[in-house]
Amino acid sequence: MTVQTGSDGTRIAVLGAGSWGTVFANVAADAADLARRQDPGGPAAEVVLWGRRSSVVDAINEKGENPDYFPGIALNPRLRATADVAEALSGAGVVVLAVPSQTLRDNLARWREHLEGDAVIVSLMKGVELGTCMRVSQVVAEVLEIPEERIAAVSGPNLAREIAEHQPATAVVACSRESTALRLQELFKAPYFRPYTSTDLVGVEIGGAMKNVIALAVGVAAGMGFGDNTKASLITRGLAETTRLAVALGADEHTLSGLAGMGDLVATCTSPLSRNRTFGEKLGAGKTLEQVVAETKQTAEGVKSSQSVLELGWAHGVDLPITEAVVKMMHHDLSPAEALAAFMARSAKPERYGV
Amino acid sequence: MTVQTGSDGTRIAVLGAGSWGTVFANVAADAADLARRQDPGGPAAEVVLWGRRSSVVDAINEKGENPDYFPGIALNPRLRATADVAEALSGAGVVVLAVPSQTLRDNLARWREHLEGDAVIVSLMKGVELGTCMRVSQVVAEVLEIPEERIAAVSGPNLAREIAEHQPATAVVACSRESTALRLQELFKAPYFRPYTSTDLVGVEIGGAMKNVIALAVGVAAGMGFGDNTKASLITRGLAETTRLAVALGADEHTLSGLAGMGDLVATCTSPLSRNRTFGEKLGAGKTLEQVVAETKQTAEGVKSSQSVLELGWAHGVDLPITEAVVKMMHHDLSPAEALAAFMARSAKPERYGV
Repeated sequence: MTVQTGSDGTRIAVLGAGSWGTVFANVAADAADLARRQDPGGPAAEVVLWGRRSSVVDAINEKGENPDYFPGIALNPRLRATADVAEALSGAGVVVLAVPSQTLRDNLARWREHLEGDAVIVSLMKGVELGTCMRVSQVVAEVLEIPEERIAAVSGPNLAREIAEHQPATAVVACSRESTALRLQELFKAPYFRPYTSTDLVGVEIGGAMKNVIALAVGVAAGMGFGDNTKASLITRGLAETTRLAVALGADEHTLSGLAGMGDLVATCTSPLSRNRTFGEKLGAGKTLEQVVAETKQTAEGVKSSQSVLELGWAHGVDLPITEAVVKMMHHDLSPAEALAAFMARSAKPERYGV
Repeated sequence: MTVQTGSDGTRIAVLGAGSWGTVFANVAADAADLARRQDPGGPAAEVVLWGRRSSVVDAINEKGENPDYFPGIALNPRLRATADVAEALSGAGVVVLAVPSQTLRDNLARWREHLEGDAVIVSLMKGVELGTCMRVSQVVAEVLEIPEERIAAVSGPNLAREIAEHQPATAVVACSRESTALRLQELFKAPYFRPYTSTDLVGVEIGGAMKNVIALAVGVAAGMGFGDNTKASLITRGLAETTRLAVALGADEHTLSGLAGMGDLVATCTSPLSRNRTFGEKLGAGKTLEQVVAETKQTAEGVKSSQSVLELGWAHGVDLPITEAVVKMMHHDLSPAEALAAFMARSAKPERYGV
């Protein structure tokens, strides 16, 4: 496989050929095409996607599709895949991480030797590490020993399947160094995908991590047969507790009212495509945790990260009642009915959503 | 019809036997039953529902149901209805308004002579008056010549049908005089309906008025075939413009992040039961405005109030791009496709959701 990377082009390596990794690599390839059309003589990025399994890599290279997640959806023909991470990372100035949160630390330790010294690391991942309660960018900074200014996150109402179908979507690219956020905005701006910039990495990461937890709770309520009033109340209170935690960690509360907070939460909680919501729904409908785990092919990030999020709350003195109910349901055998009863009893307080 | 109102009980008159008026009267009757169970010797409210049409009034009194909106759903047997507004208002210490926004002024002028001198007025209505751009509470204060402290609003994620089915729901009762909000909270607290108090009447009213406008826009996008990413983006940006307008009018931005802002907006925009969303959906699917109006039995408040909301924005120098697109679609023959194109082109700005 040959990937051209002129001195004035950027090579983007997307690590992880799951649903969002695949679609995001495709967005970046479509963004490069857009850049070529707008400035035929100018620089344009090359995009390479690393996948663990050679069957997926071969299908992307030979058929131009990812049969595991999006059979029949044509990917950009310029998008190349590889199962060799050294090859993917060679010359890559931008490295996009799209692996399960809890595998990140080990993966990074293995990948580290292949990374270019000045690469910018972009997280698509939504979780908080078990045990350490670190955000993805903190794990990256620690393992790779790089400053936070070289780490960014992309988040928003981004259900992968809809973006694979080129439906219009928006997202936030957050990096504490604004110039890096602006550079990434250009690299990821496709005709159907519009990234906005932010410097609030903490807010964007906490919004992303907690929405999976809240989506589990909303799924449980939906599975129990509750309607849109109940779901909307849970989403509203869920964003309130997300905002409380994010602000305690140093975020700007307005980030949580934006696309990476409310936008992502609403999309995840209302879509039948969300795996966290679907996971909760099966549980609410009466299946046991073991049955749901066995049935669910993809990872429901919220199941694991609920525990780390709750610990983060404890460490910072922030009350997270919905997260607590999710942890008890996912890890301590609390039944959905008991959790709901506890939650409804608890909510008899004056409305105070202020932070 | 005899309605008992002991000196220590409150008589509640609900004016308007549409879907929400009927269900809210039922909530108040259930709340009175709860109060009786909790304190058999104490005061408990009587609830009377005024409806314009005698067929509906008779059905409520004789069959215990409202056949127009909720056939087969049993109302509280204590709930009485009347078509005589003087009878409804006689002795009523709490008067709940549930008529279409644009008929309010004329109705109030007719009802005024029958109102008790110290009655508290509670608005369930969501709109801004055409021509004057006044909120409901402002129209009430002007026509009845009473101070704002005697006027309250109830709002939240309250799809009427779900509450008719006794699904758990939450709402906000807002009145600038906190003691009045607390009194109303007690009067409306049913086993399945939990009201929270707020003193931010402006925030609650603007949240309620604008959610109908945003729901029209989300409906149009849904009707055009767009998915949950697009809808979540519109809801997020819709709440941002709602918050901008509310704050310009003196509201607390956190009210808009609460049940009467985000909660009501999310419920309305995601439910197939919302008439504003459904109205927009038909339009997005290609029907003409005339066809949709002819098909829609219930009023879509947002069609009319979009214009007043936009004028409010102009008067206060607040940019309301989604509202503007809705006004152009509803009143100036802009096609949904043109509106979407204009909106997507416009949104190429940095993410600034701050107020």
